[in-house]
Amino acid sequence: MFKAKVIIKRRPSILDPQGVAVEKGAFHLGLTNIKDTRIGKFIEFTVDTSDKIAAEKEVTEYCSKLLANPIMEDFEFTLESMK
Amino acid sequence: MFKAKVIIKRRPSILDPQGVAVEKGAFHLGLTNIKDTRIGKFIEFTVDTSDKIAAEKEVTEYCSKLLANPIMEDFEFTLESMK
Repeated sequence: MFKAKVIIKRRPSILDPQGVAVEKGAFHLGLTNIKDTRIGKFIEFTVDTSDKIAAEKEVTEYCSKLLANPIMEDFEFTLESMK
Repeated sequence: MFKAKVIIKRRPSILDPQGVAVEKGAFHLGLTNIKDTRIGKFIEFTVDTSDKIAAEKEVTEYCSKLLANPIMEDFEFTLESMK
């Protein structure tokens, strides 16, 4: 069994309007040093197999077909063995 | 200047309907080993100050007032010095 942690980010060339909006809020709160906010996703799940290669394949398919938008997002993940 | 990386997760006791939905999609794709999907946020930004204590204070305020929902989410962050 593995614990998978996935980070999904918009490609750097793609605008992040949600990040821009929330950063404006920060500015109005007086947090004027915050810059370049980019909002992505953090996804955790378990993979119920003892074969690490199979787990990596399954996680890659899950990310590329369901979790990330391949047109504008990149993903990276880590797999950690669970007792 | 610091690079901040924030992870926001729902509290474990709070249901994650988006995670449940996307996991059903995985099951229908044949990815039957994927379990307990939880979807959170990953947020990156820079903090334009050289004072680490001030940066930590600013990031904590940004997270607790704007980025995370204090009723149902927890946040954690790392700060990394940038050249």
